[in-house]
Amino acid sequence: MTPEKIEKISELLAHWPGIGPRQARRIAFYIADLEKKDIIEIADAIKEIGNIKRCKSCFFIHNEAGENCLICANSKRSKDLVAIVEKETDLITLEKTGKFLGRYLVIGELSKDGILTNTNNARIESFKKSLGGEILEEIIIALSPTTKGDVNASVLTSLLEKSAKKISRLGRGIPTGGEVEFADEETILNSLLNRK
Amino acid sequence: MTPEKIEKISELLAHWPGIGPRQARRIAFYIADLEKKDIIEIADAIKEIGNIKRCKSCFFIHNEAGENCLICANSKRSKDLVAIVEKETDLITLEKTGKFLGRYLVIGELSKDGILTNTNNARIESFKKSLGGEILEEIIIALSPTTKGDVNASVLTSLLEKSAKKISRLGRGIPTGGEVEFADEETILNSLLNRK
Repeated sequence: MTPEKIEKISELLAHWPGIGPRQARRIAFYIADLEKKDIIEIADAIKEIGNIKRCKSCFFIHNEAGENCLICANSKRSKDLVAIVEKETDLITLEKTGKFLGRYLVIGELSKDGILTNTNNARIESFKKSLGGEILEEIIIALSPTTKGDVNASVLTSLLEKSAKKISRLGRGIPTGGEVEFADEETILNSLLNRK
Repeated sequence: MTPEKIEKISELLAHWPGIGPRQARRIAFYIADLEKKDIIEIADAIKEIGNIKRCKSCFFIHNEAGENCLICANSKRSKDLVAIVEKETDLITLEKTGKFLGRYLVIGELSKDGILTNTNNARIESFKKSLGGEILEEIIIALSPTTKGDVNASVLTSLLEKSAKKISRLGRGIPTGGEVEFADEETILNSLLNRK
Protein backbone atom coordinates (compact mmCIF):
# COMPACT_ATOMS: atom_id res chain seq x y z
CA MET A 1 0.00 0.00 0.00
CA THR A 2 2.63 2.52 1.07
CA PRO A 3 4.98 3.42 -1.79
CA GLU A 4 8.40 1.78 -1.57
CA LYS A 5 10.35 5.06 -1.48
CA ILE A 6 8.26 6.18 1.47
CA GLU A 7 8.89 2.86 3.26
CA LYS A 8 12.61 3.19 2.64
CA ILE A 9 12.99 6.66 4.12
CA SER A 10 10.56 5.84 6.97
CA GLU A 11 12.78 2.95 8.03
CA LEU A 12 15.86 5.17 8.04
CA LEU A 13 14.17 8.00 9.95
CA ALA A 14 12.85 5.59 12.60
CA HIS A 15 16.46 5.13 13.77
CA TRP A 16 16.85 8.82 14.55
CA PRO A 17 16.75 9.85 18.20
CA GLY A 18 13.23 10.40 19.51
CA ILE A 19 11.48 9.33 16.30
CA GLY A 20 9.23 6.28 16.30
CA PRO A 21 7.97 4.34 13.24
CA ARG A 22 4.68 6.24 13.10
CA GLN A 23 6.26 9.70 13.20
CA ALA A 24 8.87 8.51 10.69
CA ARG A 25 6.11 7.68 8.21
CA ARG A 26 4.35 10.94 8.90
CA ILE A 27 7.58 12.81 8.16
CA ALA A 28 8.13 10.77 4.98
CA PHE A 29 4.71 11.81 3.67
CA TYR A 30 5.39 15.38 4.77
CA ILE A 31 8.59 15.38 2.70
CA ALA A 32 6.66 13.97 -0.26
CA ASP A 33 4.41 17.03 -0.06
CA LEU A 34 7.31 19.52 -0.26
CA GLU A 35 8.45 21.22 -3.43
CA LYS A 36 11.23 19.32 -5.21
CA LYS A 37 13.74 22.12 -4.58
CA ASP A 38 13.06 21.99 -0.83
CA ILE A 39 13.57 18.23 -0.83
CA ILE A 40 16.90 18.65 -2.59
CA GLU A 41 17.91 21.37 -0.11
CA ILE A 42 17.33 18.98 2.80
CA ALA A 43 19.14 16.09 1.10
CA ASP A 44 22.12 18.31 0.33
CA ALA A 45 22.25 19.72 3.87
CA ILE A 46 22.35 16.17 5.23
CA LYS A 47 25.04 15.16 2.76
CA GLU A 48 27.11 18.16 3.91
CA ILE A 49 27.12 16.77 7.45
CA GLY A 50 29.15 13.89 6.02
CA ASN A 51 31.90 16.41 5.21
CA ILE A 52 32.10 17.86 8.69
CA LYS A 53 35.46 17.76 10.48
CA ARG A 54 36.18 16.38 13.91
CA CYS A 55 38.84 17.93 16.18
CA LYS A 56 41.96 15.72 16.38
CA SER A 57 42.26 16.49 20.09
CA CYS A 58 38.81 16.61 21.67
CA PHE A 59 36.69 15.07 18.86
CA PHE A 60 34.23 17.94 18.81
CA ILE A 61 32.99 18.69 15.29
CA HIS A 62 34.04 22.02 13.80
CA ASN A 63 34.32 24.19 10.69
CA GLU A 64 37.89 25.42 11.21
CA ALA A 65 40.63 25.29 8.58
CA GLY A 66 43.10 23.44 10.80
CA GLU A 67 42.85 20.07 12.51
CA ASN A 68 41.70 21.44 15.84
CA CYS A 69 38.51 23.09 17.01
CA LEU A 70 38.54 26.68 18.31
CA ILE A 71 38.65 25.52 21.93
CA CYS A 72 41.66 23.23 21.50
CA ALA A 73 43.40 25.87 19.35
CA ASN A 74 42.94 28.50 22.09
CA SER A 75 46.19 28.78 24.03
CA LYS A 76 44.36 30.51 26.92
CA ARG A 77 42.44 27.35 27.73
CA SER A 78 44.10 25.32 30.46
CA LYS A 79 45.71 22.07 29.39
CA ASP A 80 45.61 20.87 32.97
CA LEU A 81 41.85 20.64 33.30
CA VAL A 82 39.82 18.39 31.01
CA ALA A 83 36.07 17.79 31.06
CA ILE A 84 34.97 14.49 29.58
CA VAL A 85 31.52 14.79 28.00
CA GLU A 86 29.45 12.19 26.22
CA LYS A 87 27.99 14.27 23.39
CA GLU A 88 28.69 17.45 21.41
CA THR A 89 25.53 18.99 22.84
CA ASP A 90 26.87 18.43 26.37
CA LEU A 91 30.04 20.33 25.44
CA ILE A 92 27.95 23.20 24.07
CA THR A 93 25.88 23.35 27.26
CA LEU A 94 29.02 23.52 29.44
CA GLU A 95 30.62 26.05 27.12
CA LYS A 96 27.61 28.37 27.39
CA THR A 97 28.38 29.03 31.07
CA GLY A 98 31.54 30.82 29.91
CA LYS A 99 33.14 29.75 33.21
CA PHE A 100 34.88 26.58 32.19
CA LEU A 101 38.37 27.43 31.01
CA GLY A 102 39.75 23.95 30.55
CA ARG A 103 39.48 21.65 27.56
CA TYR A 104 37.20 18.80 26.61
CA LEU A 105 37.14 15.23 25.47
CA VAL A 106 33.95 14.26 23.64
CA ILE A 107 33.89 10.54 24.29
CA GLY A 108 30.87 9.64 22.13
CA GLU A 109 27.59 7.88 22.91
CA LEU A 110 28.00 5.57 25.92
CA SER A 111 26.25 2.28 26.50
CA LYS A 112 23.89 1.64 29.45
CA ASP A 113 25.99 -1.17 30.86
CA GLY A 114 29.34 0.62 31.00
CA ILE A 115 30.89 -1.43 28.21
CA LEU A 116 32.84 1.09 26.15
CA THR A 117 32.28 1.16 22.40
CA ASN A 118 35.11 1.12 19.88
CA THR A 119 34.63 4.86 19.46
CA ASN A 120 34.85 5.47 23.24
CA ASN A 121 38.02 3.34 23.51
CA ALA A 122 39.69 4.93 20.50
CA ARG A 123 39.09 8.41 21.89
CA ILE A 124 40.38 7.53 25.35
CA GLU A 125 43.47 5.94 23.81
CA SER A 126 44.08 9.01 21.67
CA PHE A 127 43.59 11.25 24.73
CA LYS A 128 46.04 9.25 26.86
CA LYS A 129 48.57 9.20 24.03
CA SER A 130 48.29 13.00 23.70
CA LEU A 131 49.21 13.31 27.40
CA GLY A 132 52.42 11.37 26.81
CA GLY A 133 52.73 10.39 30.47
CA GLU A 134 51.97 13.90 31.73
CA ILE A 135 49.68 14.02 34.78
CA LEU A 136 46.82 16.53 34.61
CA GLU A 137 45.61 18.60 37.55
CA GLU A 138 42.04 17.44 37.13
CA ILE A 139 39.70 15.50 34.93
CA ILE A 140 36.00 16.33 35.34
CA ILE A 141 33.83 13.44 34.25
CA ALA A 142 30.87 15.53 33.08
CA LEU A 143 28.39 12.72 32.48
CA SER A 144 24.72 13.01 33.35
CA PRO A 145 23.87 11.98 36.93
CA THR A 146 21.83 9.01 35.73
CA THR A 147 22.37 5.28 36.25
CA LYS A 148 24.02 5.12 32.86
CA GLY A 149 26.23 8.12 33.68
CA ASP A 150 27.21 6.66 37.06
CA VAL A 151 28.13 3.26 35.62
CA ASN A 152 30.25 4.81 32.89
CA ALA A 153 31.82 7.32 35.28
CA SER A 154 33.19 4.43 37.38
CA VAL A 155 34.61 2.78 34.28
CA LEU A 156 36.22 6.03 33.14
CA THR A 157 37.56 6.81 36.60
CA SER A 158 39.44 3.51 36.79
CA LEU A 159 40.78 3.94 33.25
CA LEU A 160 41.98 7.48 33.89
CA GLU A 161 43.02 7.50 37.55
CA LYS A 162 46.70 7.62 36.64
CA SER A 163 46.23 10.50 34.22
CA ALA A 164 45.19 13.19 36.72
CA LYS A 165 45.79 14.19 40.33
CA LYS A 166 42.07 14.53 40.83
CA ILE A 167 39.08 13.01 39.09
CA SER A 168 35.80 14.77 39.80
CA ARG A 169 32.22 14.65 38.64
CA LEU A 170 29.76 17.50 38.20
CA GLY A 171 28.13 18.56 41.47
CA ARG A 172 24.65 17.30 42.10
CA GLY A 173 23.18 20.67 41.37
CA ILE A 174 21.64 18.83 38.47
CA PRO A 175 18.49 17.04 39.52
CA THR A 176 19.09 13.28 39.69
CA GLY A 177 17.65 11.64 36.61
CA GLY A 178 18.10 14.81 34.55
CA GLU A 179 20.25 15.20 31.46
CA VAL A 180 23.27 17.52 31.13
CA GLU A 181 22.06 18.63 27.74
CA PHE A 182 18.82 20.10 29.10
CA ALA A 183 20.09 21.80 32.26
CA ASP A 184 19.80 25.59 32.44
CA GLU A 185 22.99 27.64 32.63
CA GLU A 186 22.64 28.48 36.32
CA THR A 187 22.32 24.84 37.31
CA ILE A 188 25.25 23.88 35.13
CA LEU A 189 27.34 26.69 36.61
CA ASN A 190 26.54 25.55 40.16
CA SER A 191 27.32 21.99 39.27
CA LEU A 192 30.70 23.15 37.95
CA LEU A 193 31.44 25.17 41.11
CA ASN A 194 30.28 22.38 43.44
CA ARG A 195 32.08 19.60 41.67
CA LYS A 196 33.62 17.04 43.97
CA MET B 1 29.71 27.53 18.97
CA THR B 2 27.61 25.05 17.01
CA PRO B 3 29.09 24.35 13.57
CA GLU B 4 27.30 26.07 10.71
CA LYS B 5 26.40 22.86 8.87
CA ILE B 6 24.76 21.56 12.02
CA GLU B 7 22.80 24.82 12.43
CA LYS B 8 21.68 24.63 8.81
CA ILE B 9 20.26 21.10 8.98
CA SER B 10 18.81 21.75 12.46
CA GLU B 11 16.78 24.66 11.09
CA LEU B 12 15.44 22.52 8.26
CA LEU B 13 14.58 19.58 10.52
CA ALA B 14 12.76 21.86 12.99
CA HIS B 15 10.07 22.35 10.32
CA TRP B 16 9.28 18.64 10.17
CA PRO B 17 6.09 17.46 11.87
CA GLY B 18 6.54 16.77 15.59
CA ILE B 19 10.17 17.93 15.72
CA GLY B 20 11.12 20.95 17.85
CA PRO B 21 14.37 22.95 17.66
CA ARG B 22 16.04 21.00 20.45
CA GLN B 23 15.30 17.57 18.98
CA ALA B 24 16.32 18.90 15.57
CA ARG B 25 19.77 19.77 16.91
CA ARG B 26 20.04 16.43 18.67
CA ILE B 27 19.27 14.68 15.38
CA ALA B 28 21.81 16.84 13.54
CA PHE B 29 24.55 15.75 15.94
CA TYR B 30 23.33 12.18 15.69
CA ILE B 31 23.72 12.34 11.91
CA ALA B 32 27.20 13.82 12.34
CA ASP B 33 28.13 10.69 14.29
CA LEU B 34 27.02 8.31 11.53
CA GLU B 35 29.38 6.75 9.00
CA LYS B 36 29.67 8.79 5.82
CA LYS B 37 28.03 6.03 3.73
CA ASP B 38 25.00 6.00 6.05
CA ILE B 39 24.67 9.77 5.76
CA ILE B 40 24.74 9.51 1.97
CA GLU B 41 22.14 6.73 2.07
CA ILE B 42 19.76 8.98 4.00
CA ALA B 43 20.38 11.98 1.75
CA ASP B 44 19.78 9.86 -1.35
CA ALA B 45 16.60 8.31 0.06
CA ILE B 46 15.24 11.81 0.75
CA LYS B 47 16.20 12.98 -2.73
CA GLU B 48 14.32 9.99 -4.17
CA ILE B 49 11.13 11.23 -2.51
CA GLY B 50 11.37 14.20 -4.85
CA ASN B 51 10.92 11.77 -7.77
CA ILE B 52 7.79 10.16 -6.40
CA LYS B 53 4.62 10.22 -8.55
CA ARG B 54 1.22 11.49 -7.54
CA CYS B 55 -1.97 9.90 -8.90
CA LYS B 56 -3.65 12.17 -11.48
CA SER B 57 -7.07 11.27 -10.07
CA CYS B 58 -6.87 10.98 -6.29
CA PHE B 59 -3.43 12.60 -5.64
CA PHE B 60 -2.17 9.66 -3.60
CA ILE B 61 1.52 9.04 -4.17
CA HIS B 62 2.45 5.80 -5.92
CA ASN B 63 5.13 3.74 -7.70
CA GLU B 64 3.04 2.57 -10.67
CA ALA B 65 4.08 2.85 -14.31
CA GLY B 66 0.92 4.69 -15.39
CA GLU B 67 -0.54 7.99 -14.24
CA ASN B 68 -2.92 6.46 -11.73
CA CYS B 69 -2.45 4.69 -8.43
CA LEU B 70 -3.52 1.06 -8.01
CA ILE B 71 -6.82 2.08 -6.38
CA CYS B 72 -7.88 4.45 -9.15
CA ALA B 73 -6.70 1.95 -11.80
CA ASN B 74 -8.86 -0.80 -10.23
CA SER B 75 -12.09 -1.08 -12.24
CA LYS B 76 -13.75 -2.97 -9.37
CA ARG B 77 -13.66 0.11 -7.14
CA SER B 78 -16.91 2.07 -7.27
CA LYS B 79 -16.76 5.39 -9.04
CA ASP B 80 -19.93 6.47 -7.24
CA LEU B 81 -18.49 6.58 -3.75
CA VAL B 82 -15.58 8.87 -2.91
CA ALA B 83 -13.91 9.39 0.47
CA ILE B 84 -12.17 12.72 0.91
CA VAL B 85 -9.15 12.40 3.20
CA GLU B 86 -6.68 15.00 4.33
CA LYS B 87 -3.46 12.99 4.22
CA GLU B 88 -1.97 9.92 2.54
CA THR B 89 -1.75 8.24 5.94
CA ASP B 90 -5.52 8.69 6.42
CA LEU B 91 -6.10 6.91 3.11
CA ILE B 92 -3.86 4.05 4.22
CA THR B 93 -5.75 3.73 7.52
CA LEU B 94 -9.13 3.54 5.74
CA GLU B 95 -7.72 1.15 3.14
CA LYS B 96 -6.50 -1.23 5.85
CA THR B 97 -10.11 -1.97 6.87
CA GLY B 98 -10.51 -3.68 3.48
CA LYS B 99 -14.20 -2.68 3.60
CA PHE B 100 -14.17 0.55 1.69
CA LEU B 101 -14.69 -0.18 -1.98
CA GLY B 102 -15.01 3.34 -3.30
CA ARG B 103 -12.29 5.75 -4.34
CA TYR B 104 -10.46 8.59 -2.66
CA LEU B 105 -9.51 12.19 -2.98
CA VAL B 106 -6.42 13.16 -0.96
CA ILE B 107 -7.04 16.85 -0.45
CA GLY B 108 -3.76 17.74 1.28
CA GLU B 109 -2.95 19.39 4.60
CA LEU B 110 -5.85 21.60 5.73
CA SER B 111 -5.63 24.83 7.70
CA LYS B 112 -7.16 25.30 11.16
CA ASP B 113 -9.43 28.12 10.06
CA GLY B 114 -11.07 26.41 7.09
CA ILE B 115 -9.35 28.61 4.50
CA LEU B 116 -8.39 26.22 1.72
CA THR B 117 -4.80 26.25 0.48
CA ASN B 118 -3.88 26.46 -3.20
CA THR B 119 -3.21 22.72 -3.13
CA ASN B 120 -6.63 22.00 -1.59
CA ASN B 121 -8.39 24.17 -4.17
CA ALA B 122 -6.45 22.74 -7.12
CA ARG B 123 -7.33 19.19 -6.08
CA ILE B 124 -11.04 19.99 -5.60
CA GLU B 125 -11.14 21.70 -9.01
CA SER B 126 -9.44 18.71 -10.64
CA PHE B 127 -11.88 16.35 -8.89
CA LYS B 128 -14.96 18.33 -9.99
CA LYS B 129 -13.63 18.53 -13.53
CA SER B 130 -13.11 14.75 -13.60
CA LEU B 131 -16.80 14.31 -12.71
CA GLY B 132 -17.80 16.33 -15.76
CA GLY B 133 -21.20 17.21 -14.31
CA GLU B 134 -21.91 13.65 -13.17
CA ILE B 135 -23.56 13.38 -9.73
CA LEU B 136 -22.03 10.79 -7.36
CA GLU B 137 -24.05 8.57 -5.03
CA GLU B 138 -22.06 9.65 -1.98
CA ILE B 139 -19.06 11.63 -0.84
CA ILE B 140 -17.71 10.70 2.60
CA ILE B 141 -15.80 13.59 4.14
CA ALA B 142 -13.37 11.46 6.12
CA LEU B 143 -11.76 14.22 8.19
CA SER B 144 -10.89 13.77 11.85
CA PRO B 145 -13.65 14.68 14.33
CA THR B 146 -11.67 17.65 15.63
CA THR B 147 -12.43 21.38 15.54
CA LYS B 148 -10.17 21.69 12.51
CA GLY B 149 -11.85 18.73 10.82
CA ASP B 150 -15.33 20.11 11.57
CA VAL B 151 -14.55 23.58 10.20
CA ASN B 152 -13.07 22.18 7.01
CA ALA B 153 -15.87 19.63 6.60
CA SER B 154 -18.43 22.47 6.48
CA VAL B 155 -16.38 24.27 3.84
CA LEU B 156 -16.03 21.10 1.74
CA THR B 157 -19.71 20.24 2.12
CA SER B 158 -20.81 23.58 0.67
CA LEU B 159 -18.29 23.29 -2.17
CA LEU B 160 -19.34 19.76 -3.09
CA GLU B 161 -23.06 19.65 -2.32
CA LYS B 162 -23.96 19.64 -6.00
CA SER B 163 -21.55 16.84 -6.80
CA ALA B 164 -23.22 14.03 -4.83
CA LYS B 165 -26.68 12.90 -3.73
CA LYS B 166 -25.39 12.45 -0.21
CA ILE B 167 -22.51 13.98 1.72
CA SER B 168 -21.59 12.12 4.91
CA ARG B 169 -18.89 12.15 7.57
CA LEU B 170 -17.33 9.26 9.50
CA GLY B 171 -19.47 8.05 12.42
CA ARG B 172 -18.54 9.25 15.87
CA GLY B 173 -18.55 7.08 18.95
CA ILE B 174 -16.47 5.19 21.45
CA PRO B 175 -13.35 3.71 19.86
CA THR B 176 -13.10 -0.09 19.92
CA GLY B 177 -11.35 -1.04 23.13
CA GLY B 178 -12.34 2.26 24.75
CA GLU B 179 -14.15 2.39 28.10
CA VAL B 180 -17.57 4.02 28.49
CA GLU B 181 -16.45 5.27 31.90
CA PHE B 182 -13.65 7.36 30.46
CA ALA B 183 -15.33 8.65 27.31
CA ASP B 184 -15.95 12.40 27.23
CA GLU B 185 -19.53 13.72 27.08
CA GLU B 186 -19.32 14.67 23.42
CA THR B 187 -18.22 11.15 22.50
CA ILE B 188 -20.87 9.49 24.66
CA LEU B 189 -23.56 11.72 23.18
CA ASN B 190 -22.42 10.80 19.66
CA SER B 191 -22.29 7.12 20.53
CA LEU B 192 -25.91 7.37 21.76
CA LEU B 193 -27.05 9.17 18.62
CA ASN B 194 -25.22 6.73 16.35
CA ARG B 195 -26.32 3.60 18.19
CA LYS B 196 -27.32 0.60 16.13
